[in-house]
Amino acid sequence: MSETNGITAELETAMADAADVAPTLAASLTTTRAGWLRAIADRLDADADALVELAMRESHLTKPRLTGELVRTTFQLRLFAQVAQEGRFLEATIDHADPEWPMGARPDLRRVLRPLGPAAVFAASNFPFAFSVAGGDTAAAIAAGAPVVVKAHSAHPELSRAVATHVQAALAASGAPRGVFALVEGRETGRALVSDPRLTVATFTGSLNGGRALFDLAAARPEPIPFYGELGSINPVFVTPAAAASRPEQIADGFAASMTLSVGQFCTKPGVLLVPESSPLGDLVVAAVGAIAGGPMLSDGMRDGYFASLAPLAARDDVELLAGSPDRVEQPTPTLYGTDAHTFVAHADELLEEHFGPAAVLVRYSSEDELLAVARTLRGQLTATIQGEPGDDAGELVEILADKAGRVLFNGWPTGVSVTYAQQHGGPYPATTAPHFTSVGTASIGRFLRPVAYQDTPDALLPPALQEANPWGVPRTVDGTVVPPPQANPA
Amino acid sequence: MSETNGITAELETAMADAADVAPTLAASLTTTRAGWLRAIADRLDADADALVELAMRESHLTKPRLTGELVRTTFQLRLFAQVAQEGRFLEATIDHADPEWPMGARPDLRRVLRPLGPAAVFAASNFPFAFSVAGGDTAAAIAAGAPVVVKAHSAHPELSRAVATHVQAALAASGAPRGVFALVEGRETGRALVSDPRLTVATFTGSLNGGRALFDLAAARPEPIPFYGELGSINPVFVTPAAAASRPEQIADGFAASMTLSVGQFCTKPGVLLVPESSPLGDLVVAAVGAIAGGPMLSDGMRDGYFASLAPLAARDDVELLAGSPDRVEQPTPTLYGTDAHTFVAHADELLEEHFGPAAVLVRYSSEDELLAVARTLRGQLTATIQGEPGDDAGELVEILADKAGRVLFNGWPTGVSVTYAQQHGGPYPATTAPHFTSVGTASIGRFLRPVAYQDTPDALLPPALQEANPWGVPRTVDGTVVPPPQANPA
Repeated sequence: MSETNGITAELETAMADAADVAPTLAASLTTTRAGWLRAIADRLDADADALVELAMRESHLTKPRLTGELVRTTFQLRLFAQVAQEGRFLEATIDHADPEWPMGARPDLRRVLRPLGPAAVFAASNFPFAFSVAGGDTAAAIAAGAPVVVKAHSAHPELSRAVATHVQAALAASGAPRGVFALVEGRETGRALVSDPRLTVATFTGSLNGGRALFDLAAARPEPIPFYGELGSINPVFVTPAAAASRPEQIADGFAASMTLSVGQFCTKPGVLLVPESSPLGDLVVAAVGAIAGGPMLSDGMRDGYFASLAPLAARDDVELLAGSPDRVEQPTPTLYGTDAHTFVAHADELLEEHFGPAAVLVRYSSEDELLAVARTLRGQLTATIQGEPGDDAGELVEILADKAGRVLFNGWPTGVSVTYAQQHGGPYPATTAPHFTSVGTASIGRFLRPVAYQDTPDALLPPALQEANPWGVPRTVDGTVVPPPQANPA
Repeated sequence: MSETNGITAELETAMADAADVAPTLAASLTTTRAGWLRAIADRLDADADALVELAMRESHLTKPRLTGELVRTTFQLRLFAQVAQEGRFLEATIDHADPEWPMGARPDLRRVLRPLGPAAVFAASNFPFAFSVAGGDTAAAIAAGAPVVVKAHSAHPELSRAVATHVQAALAASGAPRGVFALVEGRETGRALVSDPRLTVATFTGSLNGGRALFDLAAARPEPIPFYGELGSINPVFVTPAAAASRPEQIADGFAASMTLSVGQFCTKPGVLLVPESSPLGDLVVAAVGAIAGGPMLSDGMRDGYFASLAPLAARDDVELLAGSPDRVEQPTPTLYGTDAHTFVAHADELLEEHFGPAAVLVRYSSEDELLAVARTLRGQLTATIQGEPGDDAGELVEILADKAGRVLFNGWPTGVSVTYAQQHGGPYPATTAPHFTSVGTASIGRFLRPVAYQDTPDALLPPALQEANPWGVPRTVDGTVVPPPQANPA
């Protein structure tokens, strides 16, 4: 009971502070927020060795992987600093009064995006830096001007606290007010967080079951709030006959490396590979996957969940074990099942389940029609990949995949997710609960913002981005026309 | 039972056709969609007299109001035709491959918005043209490339069918494929529509209870979909002491006219007016409201609901009847209640209820602190208005209202909602269920779209807006910089 009270008190403080600071933060200069983000990045970089060490101990991920992830994380913080400063994210739009507007005289209307308010960020198990305490969501929310309450992932508690200490210190040293950031812990605290009336938005990366439970809580509130959950994806890869013929070894090795990267613990792990039945590619894939050693998973819980998810596959007699094993061991070995396209389509519901770990299903197809039929059975995906050649007539497949996935790749592997302006990491349910949005890339800031229009408002009372003189120099749309900022790249 | 089967068959046909045509529509040229929208507008304009006549009979709204609403409706259709053609809504974003990208070499990534798929549009009772069968949502969805199934409002069935016939004929005459548009009717059909697995998005304008029930259905689906509900708003108006002193008659008359326009049946009707206690403005408002005659409501059901909503107000002894009456009559007269700011804040939950009809609450305040306290009690609003003067120090009030409302007005009245690029018709719950979006203005097209990124994709397989040569001439963001289209205004 005292623990319960402790959790409640911690959350109460975090939410009260976040709600208190929200108006101040909403009115803060975007350059000020940029300074905070850079200060956080600098502190994390300065302590990189110790943080990576700690992350290795808690996550069992490799040093190169975690070092690279921390590089990405501080890059994200600095990129969002730049995004905040440039101000394109404000989507400033100005319509001057127009007595001749065809539907009747229009008033002066000016719209800008402003922060929603206190945001909950649920950290992920598999990205202890980039999708955790000081990860992309935290960076985007602070850039937007929303206070952040991070719910730490139980798989890396010490690292979460260490990173939070750096974030708090960086914010304090750069003059940020109390309440911009807080860390809370515990599953019940997480549920209370989503239900807290002061919360305005929540982001989540994790399992379908856990994410759906929180989504349901958010939707059932007296005042529902947006819940951006990333819940699962099998990231199918379609190999055309031409590609299978021209570079089978490259494809087999590339697939095996992508599906086993970080012991298969990526939301973008390719979980289904479609290969032409007549090609030797299938056998090369089996050999390539079988040649890769096992490794330790993030936690015992993840490992147990992984093996449990394989049981239904292992029990099927229309699916064949091609490499590895579904038997519970300490460090799972890469495991490949095989079936044909006809079986896959007939049992798509079962065969489209995600296995979070180093497992995949090899599907052999015998015609383009079968390939397209498999594509049509897909549910919402984060990614879908085509391995093809210039001569392929892939138009129809691309259209089907674009209808299912947030990102369509050619001749690459889905496990690398670059943080850029055009990146889209999202997709229809169950890939995410909100198909309009992305959780990676600069556009992810939109999840923490909402539009407000000002009608006939005195210039001095307008947010700077909407004032006639454009004192912040942000790009704007004026009377329906895109107007770039005074200089091309103010940062 | 045969009726139930009939309803089901009608919906089944509509959804099957919508799902069938969705890929074709997603791949259609935006100029083609623009042609369809203009054809619909032309047909409605050509039959304006008969349509207005029919709308008058079913809605009891006046001829000038309905004539103006039809002008708005065909304007919306043509504006969305222009939006489709210009292509800014695609938010085309291109990041060229960059081996020097700080987090590691980035691939070529290109993002564009594409239609979600079949969309349900729930027509509103109070806008038989502009928010109904061929209203803004239908125009935006078709412009986006999403097939539309409109659920007719039971308050104007004949008009709904007449407009639908025009829409179908215009689409057929301009070569649109079957399935782009369908009309369905009936409450149970509406619920089945929201639950249909082929549906990808729904929009709704109406009551809190009805909208929340549909929102809950959408959220409870095995695969939840976005539900854009506009559920209610009291649209408070704050009069500063300076404004009350300088132009009391103008404000009193303006308020009375706005709150009684179309018998108070607007989602933007000002339902609360804050006036300085010491000013004669309050008495002028009472007189102005009392001088306006009653009128017929949209339907008997709306009228009964309106009177029922007044009962809790009428029963309070801390609220005074100032004009009109809560007693049930055929044609409600404008009704004004009065209270003080202290009472309003203490009982905000009850006093912030919406009364859909010609009723409002006059709140007298005695200090700026009281004014701000009332502002802080507000729930999410579509609009909030300040009647002020140049010398007013309104900065804090503006910030509070921008935090609560989708649109903040100065010295205007909220009942006019212009359809423009910068318009924002939305707000935090319960104003809407989705604070990121608007249901009026060109930005409303975003509700029917989702982003897709293409990685390292051959130019010929990219959507035209993302091809290197920009054959559609759309504005784009390239490597982080806004690039306007070749000519400023292609339309």
